[in-house]
Amino acid sequence: MFRYPNGKVYKPQEDIEKRRKKSITYSNRGMTLEDDLNETNLYYLENNIAVIHKKPTPVQIVNVHYPKRSAAVIKEAYFKQSSTTDYNGVYRGKYIDFEAKETKNKTSFPLQNFHEHQVSHMENVLAQDGICFVILSAFDEIYLLEAEALLKFWGRMKNGGRKSITMDEINVSAHKMTLGFQPRIDYIKIIDKLYFN
Amino acid sequence: MFRYPNGKVYKPQEDIEKRRKKSITYSNRGMTLEDDLNETNLYYLENNIAVIHKKPTPVQIVNVHYPKRSAAVIKEAYFKQSSTTDYNGVYRGKYIDFEAKETKNKTSFPLQNFHEHQVSHMENVLAQDGICFVILSAFDEIYLLEAEALLKFWGRMKNGGRKSITMDEINVSAHKMTLGFQPRIDYIKIIDKLYFN
Repeated sequence: MFRYPNGKVYKPQEDIEKRRKKSITYSNRGMTLEDDLNETNLYYLENNIAVIHKKPTPVQIVNVHYPKRSAAVIKEAYFKQSSTTDYNGVYRGKYIDFEAKETKNKTSFPLQNFHEHQVSHMENVLAQDGICFVILSAFDEIYLLEAEALLKFWGRMKNGGRKSITMDEINVSAHKMTLGFQPRIDYIKIIDKLYFN
Repeated sequence: MFRYPNGKVYKPQEDIEKRRKKSITYSNRGMTLEDDLNETNLYYLENNIAVIHKKPTPVQIVNVHYPKRSAAVIKEAYFKQSSTTDYNGVYRGKYIDFEAKETKNKTSFPLQNFHEHQVSHMENVLAQDGICFVILSAFDEIYLLEAEALLKFWGRMKNGGRKSITMDEINVSAHKMTLGFQPRIDYIKIIDKLYFN
Protein backbone atom coordinates (compact mmCIF):
# COMPACT_ATOMS: atom_id res chain seq x y z
CA MET A 1 0.00 0.00 0.00
CA PHE A 2 1.38 3.38 -1.02
CA ARG A 3 0.46 6.60 0.75
CA TYR A 4 0.56 10.16 -0.48
CA PRO A 5 2.50 12.80 1.50
CA ASN A 6 -0.75 13.75 3.20
CA GLY A 7 -1.34 10.19 4.39
CA LYS A 8 -4.06 9.30 1.90
CA VAL A 9 -3.94 5.87 0.38
CA TYR A 10 -2.87 5.72 -3.26
CA LYS A 11 -5.71 4.87 -5.63
CA PRO A 12 -4.76 4.07 -9.20
CA GLN A 13 -5.93 6.70 -11.64
CA GLU A 14 -7.46 4.09 -13.93
CA ASP A 15 -10.15 3.34 -11.33
CA ILE A 16 -11.21 6.95 -11.33
CA GLU A 17 -11.12 7.14 -15.09
CA LYS A 18 -13.11 3.92 -15.35
CA ARG A 19 -15.71 5.34 -13.04
CA ARG A 20 -16.13 8.33 -15.36
CA LYS A 21 -16.63 5.92 -18.23
CA LYS A 22 -18.76 3.33 -16.47
CA SER A 23 -21.83 4.10 -18.56
CA ILE A 24 -20.05 2.48 -21.47
CA THR A 25 -19.22 -1.18 -21.25
CA TYR A 26 -16.50 -2.88 -23.20
CA SER A 27 -17.00 -6.64 -23.35
CA ASN A 28 -17.21 -8.48 -20.06
CA ARG A 29 -13.52 -8.93 -19.43
CA GLY A 30 -13.25 -6.11 -16.88
CA MET A 31 -10.96 -4.30 -19.31
CA THR A 32 -11.66 -1.09 -21.14
CA LEU A 33 -10.77 -0.30 -24.73
CA GLU A 34 -8.31 2.19 -23.25
CA ASP A 35 -6.66 -0.56 -21.17
CA ASP A 36 -6.22 -2.70 -24.26
CA LEU A 37 -4.77 0.19 -26.25
CA ASN A 38 -2.38 1.13 -23.46
CA GLU A 39 -1.16 -2.49 -23.30
CA THR A 40 -0.82 -2.54 -27.07
CA ASN A 41 1.19 0.68 -27.08
CA LEU A 42 3.42 -0.65 -24.30
CA TYR A 43 4.01 -3.79 -26.35
CA TYR A 44 4.90 -1.68 -29.40
CA LEU A 45 7.24 0.46 -27.30
CA GLU A 46 9.04 -2.44 -25.61
CA ASN A 47 9.48 -4.26 -28.89
CA ASN A 48 10.69 -1.16 -30.76
CA ILE A 49 7.75 -1.35 -33.14
CA ALA A 50 6.28 2.12 -32.59
CA VAL A 51 6.26 4.94 -30.04
CA ILE A 52 2.63 5.83 -29.35
CA HIS A 53 1.32 7.33 -26.13
CA LYS A 54 -2.03 8.36 -24.77
CA LYS A 55 -2.07 12.03 -23.90
CA PRO A 56 -2.75 12.90 -20.27
CA THR A 57 -6.35 13.80 -19.39
CA PRO A 58 -6.61 17.58 -19.73
CA VAL A 59 -7.46 19.18 -16.43
CA GLN A 60 -8.27 22.80 -15.66
CA ILE A 61 -6.48 23.51 -12.40
CA VAL A 62 -8.19 26.11 -10.24
CA ASN A 63 -6.61 25.84 -6.82
CA VAL A 64 -3.26 24.42 -5.67
CA HIS A 65 -1.82 24.22 -2.17
CA TYR A 66 1.93 24.34 -1.67
CA PRO A 67 2.56 22.76 1.72
CA LYS A 68 6.10 23.09 3.07
CA ARG A 69 8.16 19.94 2.90
CA SER A 70 5.69 18.01 0.76
CA ALA A 71 4.36 17.87 -2.77
CA ALA A 72 1.97 20.48 -4.18
CA VAL A 73 -1.66 19.37 -3.83
CA ILE A 74 -4.27 20.28 -6.41
CA LYS A 75 -7.36 21.09 -4.32
CA GLU A 76 -9.76 22.04 -7.08
CA ALA A 77 -9.72 21.15 -10.74
CA TYR A 78 -12.12 20.22 -13.52
CA PHE A 79 -11.99 17.86 -16.45
CA LYS A 80 -11.79 19.83 -19.65
CA GLN A 81 -12.24 18.94 -23.27
CA SER A 82 -9.15 18.10 -25.23
CA SER A 83 -8.43 20.05 -28.41
CA THR A 84 -6.89 17.01 -30.08
CA THR A 85 -7.35 13.26 -30.24
CA ASP A 86 -6.11 11.09 -27.39
CA TYR A 87 -3.33 9.06 -28.95
CA ASN A 88 -0.37 10.02 -31.07
CA GLY A 89 3.19 9.09 -31.83
CA VAL A 90 5.60 7.86 -34.47
CA TYR A 91 5.88 4.74 -36.62
CA ARG A 92 8.65 4.44 -39.19
CA GLY A 93 9.10 8.21 -39.24
CA LYS A 94 5.42 8.87 -39.95
CA TYR A 95 3.11 10.72 -37.61
CA ILE A 96 0.31 8.53 -36.20
CA ASP A 97 -2.80 10.02 -34.61
CA PHE A 98 -5.99 8.37 -33.43
CA GLU A 99 -8.99 8.46 -31.18
CA ALA A 100 -10.73 5.45 -29.62
CA LYS A 101 -14.47 5.28 -29.07
CA GLU A 102 -17.02 2.70 -27.97
CA THR A 103 -20.73 2.27 -28.32
CA LYS A 104 -23.25 -0.12 -26.79
CA ASN A 105 -25.58 0.66 -29.65
CA LYS A 106 -26.44 -2.55 -31.54
CA THR A 107 -27.08 -1.30 -35.06
CA SER A 108 -25.09 1.91 -35.65
CA PHE A 109 -22.25 4.04 -34.34
CA PRO A 110 -23.48 7.47 -33.13
CA LEU A 111 -21.36 10.33 -34.45
CA GLN A 112 -22.02 12.30 -31.26
CA ASN A 113 -19.17 10.22 -29.83
CA PHE A 114 -16.86 12.66 -31.61
CA HIS A 115 -16.49 16.33 -30.81
CA GLU A 116 -16.28 19.07 -33.40
CA HIS A 117 -12.73 20.07 -32.37
CA GLN A 118 -11.53 16.45 -32.58
CA VAL A 119 -12.82 16.25 -36.11
CA SER A 120 -11.11 19.56 -36.99
CA HIS A 121 -7.91 18.19 -35.51
CA MET A 122 -8.20 15.11 -37.74
CA GLU A 123 -8.64 17.36 -40.78
CA ASN A 124 -5.55 19.32 -39.79
CA VAL A 125 -3.52 16.13 -39.35
CA LEU A 126 -4.58 14.83 -42.77
CA ALA A 127 -3.68 18.19 -44.33
CA GLN A 128 -0.16 17.69 -42.92
CA ASP A 129 -0.03 14.20 -44.42
CA GLY A 130 -0.25 12.48 -41.04
CA ILE A 131 -1.78 9.02 -40.60
CA CYS A 132 -5.07 9.50 -38.80
CA PHE A 133 -7.84 7.09 -37.86
CA VAL A 134 -10.31 6.05 -35.18
CA ILE A 135 -10.52 2.75 -33.34
CA LEU A 136 -14.13 1.79 -32.77
CA SER A 137 -15.47 -0.77 -30.37
CA ALA A 138 -18.96 -1.65 -31.57
CA PHE A 139 -21.20 -4.67 -32.27
CA ASP A 140 -18.76 -6.88 -30.29
CA GLU A 141 -16.01 -6.06 -32.78
CA ILE A 142 -13.00 -3.73 -32.94
CA TYR A 143 -12.60 -1.67 -36.11
CA LEU A 144 -10.04 0.72 -37.52
CA LEU A 145 -11.77 3.41 -39.54
CA GLU A 146 -9.57 5.83 -41.46
CA ALA A 147 -10.17 9.51 -40.69
CA GLU A 148 -10.93 10.15 -44.38
CA ALA A 149 -13.93 7.81 -44.12
CA LEU A 150 -15.07 9.24 -40.80
CA LEU A 151 -14.99 12.73 -42.32
CA LYS A 152 -17.33 11.59 -45.08
CA PHE A 153 -19.92 10.35 -42.57
CA TRP A 154 -19.40 13.51 -40.51
CA GLY A 155 -19.96 15.66 -43.59
CA ARG A 156 -23.14 13.75 -44.41
CA MET A 157 -24.45 14.58 -40.92
CA LYS A 158 -23.47 18.26 -41.32
CA ASN A 159 -25.47 18.29 -44.54
CA GLY A 160 -28.56 17.14 -42.69
CA GLY A 161 -28.02 13.40 -43.10
CA ARG A 162 -28.06 10.66 -40.47
CA LYS A 163 -26.27 11.21 -37.18
CA SER A 164 -24.65 7.80 -37.09
CA ILE A 165 -22.73 5.29 -39.16
CA THR A 166 -24.70 2.11 -39.79
CA MET A 167 -23.23 -1.29 -38.98
CA ASP A 168 -23.27 -2.13 -42.68
CA GLU A 169 -21.37 1.03 -43.55
CA ILE A 170 -18.78 0.25 -40.89
CA ASN A 171 -18.39 -3.29 -42.14
CA VAL A 172 -17.77 -1.96 -45.64
CA SER A 173 -15.53 1.04 -44.88
CA ALA A 174 -13.64 0.01 -41.74
CA HIS A 175 -10.98 -2.64 -41.11
CA LYS A 176 -12.02 -5.31 -38.63
CA MET A 177 -9.40 -6.34 -36.06
CA THR A 178 -9.32 -9.47 -33.96
CA LEU A 179 -8.39 -9.15 -30.29
CA GLY A 180 -5.05 -10.80 -29.69
CA PHE A 181 -2.92 -11.65 -26.71
CA GLN A 182 0.19 -9.64 -27.52
CA PRO A 183 -0.48 -7.07 -28.80
CA ARG A 184 -4.16 -6.98 -27.91
CA ILE A 185 -5.26 -4.62 -30.71
CA ASP A 186 -2.71 -4.84 -33.49
CA TYR A 187 -3.60 -1.65 -35.36
CA ILE A 188 -0.06 -1.27 -36.72
CA LYS A 189 -0.70 -4.37 -38.84
CA ILE A 190 -3.50 -2.47 -40.61
CA ILE A 191 -1.35 0.68 -40.91
CA ASP A 192 1.36 -1.43 -42.51
CA LYS A 193 -1.06 -2.75 -45.13
CA LEU A 194 -2.57 0.67 -45.84
CA TYR A 195 0.53 2.89 -45.87
CA PHE A 196 3.71 0.82 -46.13
CA ASN A 197 3.35 -1.50 -49.05
CA MET B 1 -15.67 37.32 -15.26
CA PHE B 2 -16.41 33.63 -15.65
CA ARG B 3 -17.54 31.43 -12.78
CA TYR B 4 -17.32 27.69 -12.33
CA PRO B 5 -20.48 25.69 -11.55
CA ASN B 6 -19.59 25.93 -7.86
CA GLY B 7 -19.45 29.73 -8.01
CA LYS B 8 -15.66 30.06 -7.90
CA VAL B 9 -14.13 32.65 -10.16
CA TYR B 10 -12.27 31.30 -13.16
CA LYS B 11 -8.50 31.69 -12.92
CA PRO B 12 -6.53 31.01 -16.08
CA GLN B 13 -4.45 27.88 -15.82
CA GLU B 14 -1.36 29.67 -17.12
CA ASP B 15 -1.14 31.69 -13.91
CA ILE B 16 -0.98 28.53 -11.85
CA GLU B 17 1.53 26.97 -14.20
CA LYS B 18 3.65 30.12 -14.15
CA ARG B 19 3.63 30.07 -10.37
CA ARG B 20 5.05 26.56 -10.44
CA LYS B 21 7.78 27.78 -12.75
CA LYS B 22 8.48 31.13 -11.14
CA SER B 23 11.97 30.11 -10.03
CA ILE B 24 13.01 30.22 -13.66
CA THR B 25 12.91 33.54 -15.45
CA TYR B 26 12.63 33.93 -19.18
CA SER B 27 13.73 37.37 -20.27
CA ASN B 28 11.86 40.31 -18.77
CA ARG B 29 8.92 40.40 -21.14
CA GLY B 30 6.52 38.75 -18.73
CA MET B 31 6.29 35.85 -21.16
CA THR B 32 7.52 32.33 -20.61
CA LEU B 33 9.26 30.15 -23.17
CA GLU B 34 6.09 28.03 -23.03
CA ASP B 35 3.93 31.07 -23.91
CA ASP B 36 6.10 31.81 -26.93
CA LEU B 37 5.99 28.19 -28.09
CA ASN B 38 2.23 28.00 -27.66
CA GLU B 39 1.84 31.17 -29.74
CA THR B 40 4.21 29.77 -32.34
CA ASN B 41 2.28 26.50 -32.53
CA LEU B 42 -1.00 28.38 -32.86
CA TYR B 43 0.51 30.41 -35.70
CA TYR B 44 1.66 27.20 -37.41
CA LEU B 45 -1.80 25.66 -36.95
CA GLU B 46 -3.77 28.66 -38.21
CA ASN B 47 -1.51 29.03 -41.24
CA ASN B 48 -1.59 25.32 -42.07
CA ILE B 49 2.17 25.05 -41.59
CA ALA B 50 2.28 22.31 -38.95
CA VAL B 51 0.08 20.68 -36.30
CA ILE B 52 2.03 20.72 -33.03
CA HIS B 53 0.47 20.75 -29.57
CA LYS B 54 1.74 20.85 -26.02
CA LYS B 55 0.58 17.82 -24.08
CA PRO B 56 -1.61 18.46 -21.04
CA THR B 57 0.19 18.54 -17.68
CA PRO B 58 0.00 14.99 -16.31
CA VAL B 59 -1.97 14.88 -13.10
CA GLN B 60 -2.52 11.96 -10.72
CA ILE B 61 -6.15 12.22 -9.71
CA VAL B 62 -6.90 10.89 -6.22
CA ASN B 63 -10.34 12.15 -5.31
CA VAL B 64 -13.26 13.34 -7.46
CA HIS B 65 -16.68 14.56 -6.37
CA TYR B 66 -19.69 14.07 -8.63
CA PRO B 67 -22.23 16.66 -7.56
CA LYS B 68 -25.71 16.34 -9.05
CA ARG B 69 -26.53 18.82 -11.77
CA SER B 70 -22.98 20.20 -12.07
CA ALA B 71 -19.57 19.22 -13.37
CA ALA B 72 -17.34 16.68 -11.62
CA VAL B 73 -14.87 18.39 -9.27
CA ILE B 74 -11.39 17.01 -8.72
CA LYS B 75 -10.82 17.53 -5.00
CA GLU B 76 -7.35 16.03 -4.67
CA ALA B 77 -4.68 15.50 -7.29
CA TYR B 78 -0.91 15.73 -7.68
CA PHE B 79 1.41 16.78 -10.44
CA LYS B 80 3.19 13.77 -11.83
CA GLN B 81 6.19 13.34 -14.10
CA SER B 82 5.53 12.88 -17.75
CA SER B 83 6.92 9.82 -19.48
CA THR B 84 7.47 11.73 -22.72
CA THR B 85 8.50 15.16 -23.90
CA ASP B 86 5.99 18.02 -23.79
CA TYR B 87 5.43 18.86 -27.45
CA ASN B 88 4.66 16.70 -30.46
CA GLY B 89 2.84 16.72 -33.74
CA VAL B 90 3.15 16.49 -37.49
CA TYR B 91 4.92 18.49 -40.16
CA ARG B 92 4.80 17.37 -43.80
CA GLY B 93 3.93 13.84 -42.74
CA LYS B 94 6.90 13.55 -40.39
CA TYR B 95 6.63 13.10 -36.66
CA ILE B 96 7.97 16.07 -34.67
CA ASP B 97 8.83 15.78 -30.97
CA PHE B 98 10.52 18.22 -28.65
CA GLU B 99 11.07 19.46 -25.15
CA ALA B 100 11.69 23.08 -24.10
CA LYS B 101 14.00 24.03 -21.24
CA GLU B 102 15.43 27.20 -19.78
CA THR B 103 18.38 28.03 -17.57
CA LYS B 104 19.46 31.19 -15.75
CA ASN B 105 22.97 29.78 -15.63
CA LYS B 106 25.41 32.15 -17.39
CA THR B 107 28.07 29.79 -18.69
CA SER B 108 26.56 26.35 -19.24
CA PHE B 109 23.31 24.42 -19.59
CA PRO B 110 22.80 21.93 -16.72
CA LEU B 111 21.77 18.48 -17.94
CA GLN B 112 19.72 17.97 -14.77
CA ASN B 113 17.05 19.96 -16.62
CA PHE B 114 16.26 16.70 -18.41
CA HIS B 115 14.86 13.59 -16.81
CA GLU B 116 16.07 10.09 -17.53
CA HIS B 117 12.69 9.00 -18.98
CA GLN B 118 12.55 12.04 -21.28
CA VAL B 119 15.95 11.11 -22.66
CA SER B 120 14.81 7.48 -23.15
CA HIS B 121 11.75 8.78 -24.95
CA MET B 122 13.99 10.82 -27.29
CA GLU B 123 16.04 7.69 -28.03
CA ASN B 124 12.85 5.79 -28.81
CA VAL B 125 11.64 8.54 -31.14
CA LEU B 126 14.95 8.62 -33.01
CA ALA B 127 14.86 4.83 -33.34
CA GLN B 128 11.48 5.26 -35.09
CA ASP B 129 12.98 7.87 -37.41
CA GLY B 130 11.09 10.75 -35.81
CA ILE B 131 12.42 14.31 -35.76
CA CYS B 132 13.42 15.05 -32.20
CA PHE B 133 15.10 18.06 -30.58
CA VAL B 134 15.16 20.38 -27.61
CA ILE B 135 14.56 24.12 -27.56
CA LEU B 136 16.87 25.78 -25.06
CA SER B 137 16.55 29.24 -23.59
CA ALA B 138 19.99 30.15 -22.26
CA PHE B 139 22.53 33.01 -22.26
CA ASP B 140 19.79 35.36 -23.58
CA GLU B 141 19.44 33.25 -26.70
CA ILE B 142 17.06 30.59 -28.01
CA TYR B 143 18.62 27.46 -29.48
CA LEU B 144 17.43 24.35 -31.24
CA LEU B 145 19.61 21.39 -30.28
CA GLU B 146 19.00 18.13 -32.09
CA ALA B 147 18.31 15.15 -29.84
CA GLU B 148 21.29 13.31 -31.36
CA ALA B 149 23.60 16.02 -29.99
CA LEU B 150 21.88 16.13 -26.62
CA LEU B 151 22.30 12.36 -26.32
CA LYS B 152 26.06 12.73 -26.83
CA PHE B 153 26.34 15.21 -23.94
CA TRP B 154 24.05 13.03 -21.86
CA GLY B 155 26.24 9.99 -22.57
CA ARG B 156 29.36 11.94 -21.60
CA MET B 157 27.73 12.69 -18.22
CA LYS B 158 26.74 9.03 -17.78
CA ASN B 159 30.38 8.10 -18.37
CA GLY B 160 31.47 10.34 -15.51
CA GLY B 161 31.96 13.51 -17.55
CA ARG B 162 30.62 17.01 -16.90
CA LYS B 163 26.97 17.43 -15.89
CA SER B 164 26.32 20.33 -18.24
CA ILE B 165 26.79 21.56 -21.80
CA THR B 166 29.13 24.55 -21.98
CA MET B 167 28.08 27.71 -23.76
CA ASP B 168 30.79 27.12 -26.35
CA GLU B 169 29.53 23.60 -27.03
CA ILE B 170 26.00 24.89 -27.45
CA ASN B 171 27.15 27.61 -29.83
CA VAL B 172 28.94 24.99 -31.92
CA SER B 173 26.34 22.17 -31.89
CA ALA B 174 23.00 23.99 -31.63
CA HIS B 175 21.11 26.24 -34.05
CA LYS B 176 20.54 29.76 -32.80
CA MET B 177 17.09 31.25 -33.39
CA THR B 178 16.07 34.88 -33.30
CA LEU B 179 12.82 35.79 -31.54
CA GLY B 180 10.33 37.02 -34.11
CA PHE B 181 6.90 38.55 -34.02
CA GLN B 182 4.94 35.93 -35.94
CA PRO B 183 5.91 33.23 -35.33
CA ARG B 184 7.87 34.02 -32.19
CA ILE B 185 10.19 31.01 -32.29
CA ASP B 186 10.34 29.77 -35.86
CA TYR B 187 11.77 26.31 -35.22
CA ILE B 188 10.15 24.88 -38.37
CA LYS B 189 12.55 27.03 -40.40
CA ILE B 190 15.46 25.08 -38.85
CA ILE B 191 13.64 21.76 -39.35
CA ASP B 192 13.20 22.66 -43.01
CA LYS B 193 16.92 23.26 -43.43
CA LEU B 194 17.90 20.11 -41.56
CA TYR B 195 15.41 17.58 -42.90
CA PHE B 196 13.67 18.87 -46.03
CA ASN B 197 16.34 19.94 -48.45
